[in-house]
Amino acid sequence: MIIAELGERALLARLRARVAASPCEPLSDGVLVGIGDDAAVLRPARGMVDVLTADALVEDVHFRLGWSTPRDIGHRALAVNLSDLAAMGAWPRALLLSLALPPALPLDDFDGVLDGFLSLAAAARVPLVGGNLTRSPGPLMIDVTAVGSARPRRVMRRSGARPGDHLFVTGQLGAAAAGLALRDSGAALSALDADRRACVQRYDRPDARLRTGTIVARNRAASACMDLSDGLADAASAVADASGCGVELNAAAIPVHPGARAWAMDAERPELDLVLSGGDDYELLFAVPRRRTRLFLSAVHQAGETSVTDVGVCTSTSGAWLLGAEGRIPLGEGFGHF
Amino acid sequence: MIIAELGERALLARLRARVAASPCEPLSDGVLVGIGDDAAVLRPARGMVDVLTADALVEDVHFRLGWSTPRDIGHRALAVNLSDLAAMGAWPRALLLSLALPPALPLDDFDGVLDGFLSLAAAARVPLVGGNLTRSPGPLMIDVTAVGSARPRRVMRRSGARPGDHLFVTGQLGAAAAGLALRDSGAALSALDADRRACVQRYDRPDARLRTGTIVARNRAASACMDLSDGLADAASAVADASGCGVELNAAAIPVHPGARAWAMDAERPELDLVLSGGDDYELLFAVPRRRTRLFLSAVHQAGETSVTDVGVCTSTSGAWLLGAEGRIPLGEGFGHF
Repeated sequence: MIIAELGERALLARLRARVAASPCEPLSDGVLVGIGDDAAVLRPARGMVDVLTADALVEDVHFRLGWSTPRDIGHRALAVNLSDLAAMGAWPRALLLSLALPPALPLDDFDGVLDGFLSLAAAARVPLVGGNLTRSPGPLMIDVTAVGSARPRRVMRRSGARPGDHLFVTGQLGAAAAGLALRDSGAALSALDADRRACVQRYDRPDARLRTGTIVARNRAASACMDLSDGLADAASAVADASGCGVELNAAAIPVHPGARAWAMDAERPELDLVLSGGDDYELLFAVPRRRTRLFLSAVHQAGETSVTDVGVCTSTSGAWLLGAEGRIPLGEGFGHF
Repeated sequence: MIIAELGERALLARLRARVAASPCEPLSDGVLVGIGDDAAVLRPARGMVDVLTADALVEDVHFRLGWSTPRDIGHRALAVNLSDLAAMGAWPRALLLSLALPPALPLDDFDGVLDGFLSLAAAARVPLVGGNLTRSPGPLMIDVTAVGSARPRRVMRRSGARPGDHLFVTGQLGAAAAGLALRDSGAALSALDADRRACVQRYDRPDARLRTGTIVARNRAASACMDLSDGLADAASAVADASGCGVELNAAAIPVHPGARAWAMDAERPELDLVLSGGDDYELLFAVPRRRTRLFLSAVHQAGETSVTDVGVCTSTSGAWLLGAEGRIPLGEGFGHF
């Protein structure tokens, strides 16, 4: 069955029933009006600021229905937004979901996208409070708005890095880019070893580093933060630009995911390309003042999500550089969407 | 020149320059972080609740680039969201704009959409604080999230109507539906009389009834409110359903726009069809308790935006009905998107 056979009202009713059945449906005391009115109403968290982000996934640009399952796509549409909140140090409070749906979309795919979205929402304990459904004469588009909250002086910006601050990244990089390349090559998941399979899974279902971002922010342990949605080179350059300083990354220190390393070897491509210009890892880049290093490491440990690695330093001269075996070379730009 | 020639970074820079040049750019004291970080940060208005809505316009579903100018499309994408806030009685505080752009989109069209959006934002004194740009392999899509604020006990919901409350609509209805039909017929604007031209303009550049909605809400003069995005029949039925009552509309009392009346006569269609099932008017439907009628009318007068007309009453028996020359007939449903 395709969604056009159901019509808008029935589709909306189906969405509302799924939201009602999800563990995050209960109108928590912060949500005064949820789905079903002209707009949602939230009571602001006392003493907190609102943090707002919107990010869209477009079929055949950010995902393919033949590659990823609808559940994975729904998961990813939310994860990329939670990652933006994590990078600000904000905890999510409410979500809006805007779907543009091709009329021929199978109803099972609609359900799958919603279920993937709602189960990540439930895991993050954040309710879906509104949005809209519309028809798309082209690709499926999933646009999410995430509203978070943070203490006013605890918000992490891109612009706070200072010369001498060290740069740390969470996790191991390049996995999502390798996963995308593996998807692109048409390799069957079952034919891949565990490391390469982990790359595909990282691409399909990225995790947002919410606990790490919020606990580091709460401890004021970082001077700046940004997520790696468009690769490490893009993030490091953006932090440098916003902060009015330079950055030097130490090539040998960058933690490359073993699956990404294996893929790069097979493809005879430099593994750092994946890390520097490959997007979709949704790890976090932090700038950390030297005297906060212990506080930072203890916050990351407390979060218990992932490790961090010191990959470089902020400099007083501007520019973004990579220090490697070939000397000091300029960092390229990250993944561009056009 | 088309946008693909410019690339994502240059396009973002262009957007930021336009936002910076608009009268609403200044980071007002409520906006702590605007465009350019992982997310925007707002200080909540003291003693207010947050009101959130997201609504998308999709090319060839909600607009055509050949019919409306890019400026009109940008205006409309924002107006439909402001209308949702107006219906809740909330004043807008911040906007997020999510654009999915076909690579072959002329740069002039990109600029036009932004300019239409930003000039309405400036008129409503609401800053654009974030969003995202992405490529679309299909239609142009414009998804807007509007964040508003309202006093907690002043928010108007759809569910507050009670039997005996009268139903009022703002303005004159059917204009946008007639305007869409006139666009569809390919009629040249210059060949139309003033009434019909007003219909096309209403379709192209709807006004959100922000002052009327917020002043009525502030005075607690209405028990329920909803906007007429999908026609009067849809709105009246939705208010009845949400409120657990019925509605009876008085056919003779419904204020039909003179251009809509003229179009219906030309097309030999009942003019009420346009009003009941034609969408896009973005007028407001209010339920008003009898003892608040004077207060309500004085609030509408104070807002100074438009007139209101008493079109019917809420009943204790459920169902949505139209009372006309042919007796009592069930109200059809409004405009469906699938």
